[in-house]
Amino acid sequence: MAILMGSKNDWEKMKPAADVLAKLGVGTDVRVISAHRTPARHHEYVTGAEDRGIEIFICGAGMAAHLAGVTAALTPLPVLGVPLDGSAVDGLDALLATVQMPGGIPVATFAIGKAGAKNAGLFAGAILAGRDESVRKALAEFREAQTAGVPETPF
Amino acid sequence: MAILMGSKNDWEKMKPAADVLAKLGVGTDVRVISAHRTPARHHEYVTGAEDRGIEIFICGAGMAAHLAGVTAALTPLPVLGVPLDGSAVDGLDALLATVQMPGGIPVATFAIGKAGAKNAGLFAGAILAGRDESVRKALAEFREAQTAGVPETPF
Amino acid sequence: MAILMGSKNDWEKMKPAADVLAKLGVGTDVRVISAHRTPARHHEYVTGAEDRGIEIFICGAGMAAHLAGVTAALTPLPVLGVPLDGSAVDGLDALLATVQMPGGIPVATFAIGKAGAKNAGLFAGAILAGRDESVRKALAEFREAQTAGVPETPF
Amino acid sequence: MAILMGSKNDWEKMKPAADVLAKLGVGTDVRVISAHRTPARHHEYVTGAEDRGIEIFICGAGMAAHLAGVTAALTPLPVLGVPLDGSAVDGLDALLATVQMPGGIPVATFAIGKAGAKNAGLFAGAILAGRDESVRKALAEFREAQTAGVPETPF
Amino acid sequence: MAILMGSKNDWEKMKPAADVLAKLGVGTDVRVISAHRTPARHHEYVTGAEDRGIEIFICGAGMAAHLAGVTAALTPLPVLGVPLDGSAVDGLDALLATVQMPGGIPVATFAIGKAGAKNAGLFAGAILAGRDESVRKALAEFREAQTAGVPETPF
Amino acid sequence: MAILMGSKNDWEKMKPAADVLAKLGVGTDVRVISAHRTPARHHEYVTGAEDRGIEIFICGAGMAAHLAGVTAALTPLPVLGVPLDGSAVDGLDALLATVQMPGGIPVATFAIGKAGAKNAGLFAGAILAGRDESVRKALAEFREAQTAGVPETPF
Amino acid sequence: MAILMGSKNDWEKMKPAADVLAKLGVGTDVRVISAHRTPARHHEYVTGAEDRGIEIFICGAGMAAHLAGVTAALTPLPVLGVPLDGSAVDGLDALLATVQMPGGIPVATFAIGKAGAKNAGLFAGAILAGRDESVRKALAEFREAQTAGVPETPF
Amino acid sequence: MAILMGSKNDWEKMKPAADVLAKLGVGTDVRVISAHRTPARHHEYVTGAEDRGIEIFICGAGMAAHLAGVTAALTPLPVLGVPLDGSAVDGLDALLATVQMPGGIPVATFAIGKAGAKNAGLFAGAILAGRDESVRKALAEFREAQTAGVPETPF
Repeated sequence: MAILMGSKNDWEKMKPAADVLAKLGVGTDVRVISAHRTPARHHEYVTGAEDRGIEIFICGAGMAAHLAGVTAALTPLPVLGVPLDGSAVDGLDALLATVQMPGGIPVATFAIGKAGAKNAGLFAGAILAGRDESVRKALAEFREAQTAGVPETPF
Repeated sequence: MAILMGSKNDWEKMKPAADVLAKLGVGTDVRVISAHRTPARHHEYVTGAEDRGIEIFICGAGMAAHLAGVTAALTPLPVLGVPLDGSAVDGLDALLATVQMPGGIPVATFAIGKAGAKNAGLFAGAILAGRDESVRKALAEFREAQTAGVPETPF
Repeated sequence: MAILMGSKNDWEKMKPAADVLAKLGVGTDVRVISAHRTPARHHEYVTGAEDRGIEIFICGAGMAAHLAGVTAALTPLPVLGVPLDGSAVDGLDALLATVQMPGGIPVATFAIGKAGAKNAGLFAGAILAGRDESVRKALAEFREAQTAGVPETPF
Repeated sequence: MAILMGSKNDWEKMKPAADVLAKLGVGTDVRVISAHRTPARHHEYVTGAEDRGIEIFICGAGMAAHLAGVTAALTPLPVLGVPLDGSAVDGLDALLATVQMPGGIPVATFAIGKAGAKNAGLFAGAILAGRDESVRKALAEFREAQTAGVPETPF
Repeated sequence: MAILMGSKNDWEKMKPAADVLAKLGVGTDVRVISAHRTPARHHEYVTGAEDRGIEIFICGAGMAAHLAGVTAALTPLPVLGVPLDGSAVDGLDALLATVQMPGGIPVATFAIGKAGAKNAGLFAGAILAGRDESVRKALAEFREAQTAGVPETPF
Repeated sequence: MAILMGSKNDWEKMKPAADVLAKLGVGTDVRVISAHRTPARHHEYVTGAEDRGIEIFICGAGMAAHLAGVTAALTPLPVLGVPLDGSAVDGLDALLATVQMPGGIPVATFAIGKAGAKNAGLFAGAILAGRDESVRKALAEFREAQTAGVPETPF
Repeated sequence: MAILMGSKNDWEKMKPAADVLAKLGVGTDVRVISAHRTPARHHEYVTGAEDRGIEIFICGAGMAAHLAGVTAALTPLPVLGVPLDGSAVDGLDALLATVQMPGGIPVATFAIGKAGAKNAGLFAGAILAGRDESVRKALAEFREAQTAGVPETPF
Repeated sequence: MAILMGSKNDWEKMKPAADVLAKLGVGTDVRVISAHRTPARHHEYVTGAEDRGIEIFICGAGMAAHLAGVTAALTPLPVLGVPLDGSAVDGLDALLATVQMPGGIPVATFAIGKAGAKNAGLFAGAILAGRDESVRKALAEFREAQTAGVPETPF
């Protein structure tokens, strides 16, 4: 499981993805890889990932967020995109730049910012649950605990 | 593989998901299920789906598109959402209503309309490819053919 | 009168609905019920509400706000939706996810945030005023006091 | 039940409100009243409405849609607003001009255009159903028929 | 010259209109008049304004800003609208609710917030300058001083 | 009264301004002047306008509509801006480029497209009405006829 | 001068760039290269371009338009981006995905669609004009003819 | 190399353009010139710039940002536009007012705010690199250092 982000500063927003995967017992390889500033590093990491056992990519980026899209261009593995806010237009740019992929190269997109990062982690867990009984069980427990943790009233 | 849509009229836009999955050798159970007009049918279908062998849901809906979100609320299986246009605001409503899921219940969202439906199908194939060699091979062939099919010039 | 909200943190924004209904002499049953994280609790509460004397639902939720819509799917009673801000896109997601309901299942929608919560409470009062003389009188007094409370100048 | 619209041309979009109310057995008084071009007619109609037995207002208008808001300013009765498209910005102007009412004067807002008009009619029926057994029964039948009318598949 | 605003809290944003008119030697009658909460006060003030010597209205309001539009409905005098921010959607609602007036009843609209208030004041001065030599001279001086006040460099 | 537009193709959308001014008995000097393609013509026309008896400018332009703003920069006379649609983003670009003038140089902005052109004409009439009895009378008659022309029902 | 576009269908919208460059006497190498479907072709073309005499890239793409950005990541040469419409959200996605590049890797962005393609061609000419007298002369003539071609009136 | 901005307050946001050009060894002439408040100064500066050795303009402005467009109208030299935020709508107005130039007069537009200013500086460097070996070398070094400066992980 690779978690890529375009800048060191994105880590605070992407950490929920790693945290929730840790709860599901899934280890992550967390990297700063910019599609724009480090294209060679990106190419090398993504094309070699399958051989290193990477099954899923989670990519977080802001502004004209191209990281998830260009990752999906280089691999048939599932690519999950998390648009990050922080720009003048509050992440709407990153959302459209991530979700509006033309037909043929899919990116599974989640909500802008931390909520999206957490959900990308959970969704990656759901993919793994289809082939890994321990993740499936951990995910079921997570969901049950989540449901049980909702209080009856706000007082 | 379930393909759900909120209205019979959505089929024209969702068909690319079924078409691309057929090319990957994956059969689909295509249903009209409205989260709003047929909530009981929705509950019964989704909660019983795992037992009937459904591994992934692809949900297409327009306007205040709740279908993917309420499906994800009822199952830990991967749920893919396709926002459909046709409303006054051109599918921006369906996009935000699908992608902006709060943390805890993920929906993997794709582009508005037909391109998103096709990509949801391809992404579902990518999930299955992780556990099914024939899908993995078919997906690789699809990607190769797609690359080869791009002409060198537009003339 | 039920006031439902998707998260404990929504209470600060939804409280004006309860406050204004209290001024009109209308008691409220305030609950945290997430359409996504607690679907069973939601189904049980909404389908059993009429028998417990609930006449109107006020539902507040943020982001991909589905709470009002899925409540309206389960009951013919009036459902009032309050889109809550706090997301990256400032509640525009919640507004569109609440107001753009497809034809057939109505949700009466109010402004984003506290102003909308207050107005949902007043509107619920206006519905009850049609069958309850004391609410009608209290609402008339509220409106008169509100008009009288507007100062002539801003100095 | 008054159905007001700002222009004769709005009738095609507002007719679904009258149609669905007719199905529920509720008669409607349909009027062209512009908040901008006929303010005196508007004032007279709204302030005299309660005495003529009007219980609910449904107001449809486009562009800077003020009709619902200024109606709500003149009456404590429930006012339902339907934003109409047709402007350069596709009804987003009418939606925001209708739904974003400041706290104190509520307008219950529905989706842009025909879907919103139909839902405003259904919602008005839901209000009346609280005090009129025949409307309650007709509404229940409408909802049942609507659910039954959703086909299982789109083919 | 009337400066109307929908709420006492709008004064901070509308003050630049009064300030710039004072510099042009034009007195202002500043009032809090809500189109929604004080419709009778609004009707009385606007319809009687011409007799009291009011030549121009400047109306500032936020959210679903109807104040300028309903003022223009009641008077043939020039009405200037200033959309005010402060809502969840940052004044875009007030802008569209003010500027998108249907054909027949014009509102001259200015920028959102303080810049718009200042410009509405200057524009009112430009109208008066057409019939009042002292205002024309004051406006010319204001413009010259403004031009002279722009520094050559930002250091 | 000058009516300027950035392109010959804008005439169809700007004609309502000339038409309504003709009804008020006000003649217009209609010109194609592009702020971008004919800056010298623009400078010459605007700076010499007052001497030729021009009292008001109505400027229509689309996309990054600068015509009204740069006209206002060159004259203290009232400048009315009409944002024109036709671009990919439906005139939202022209609206913001016209209305969001920084403090100091005002442009009175009207709705996007034909409705805005008509209202700009009417507003120009309202300015002239303050110093010209015949325009004042014509405007009053226009408003009365407009009010009388609204039918009671849409049937 | 390379003109790249993501799909054969983009040619109709990108042709104005080639046309205007032809008028300036500048030849173009027009290619269909998708950042998503043909990443290897893209990498090879861009990294080898300087050696083949390419001095400037013009990249047109729609939806989540990454073509210009990933081209800029691979070359220090000037990259001009043209966002293309055709998506549900009318090219706003392509605009934000092209213009909102993070600091460090610049893309010079032009208007959505044909106008942007024409201007990208003109701008490329302006760059070349700095080092090529014949282009400078041709550009000056183009601008003069353009100015002369604006009619005085729209009639 | 001229760096123009509409207001002294824009300097903080435009400084990254001057900073990055300084790193490339390119001197800049930094000026406050408002298209609206100082049109004569603008005309004089731009039309005389080529004779003073200016080869490229970088123009930063907010709100209805006309500075880049009217500069491009007066010169065939490359004009780079940087939309600045700070308005109620977060720079979306400045972005559209800068990038949506009609065909014929190009403005190369960059991201909203500081990132856009930095990229405009880099892009100006890329233009100069085509004719100046020392800038070309400095730009290559900047890009290499930038790539090398991206850390492998965010921890």
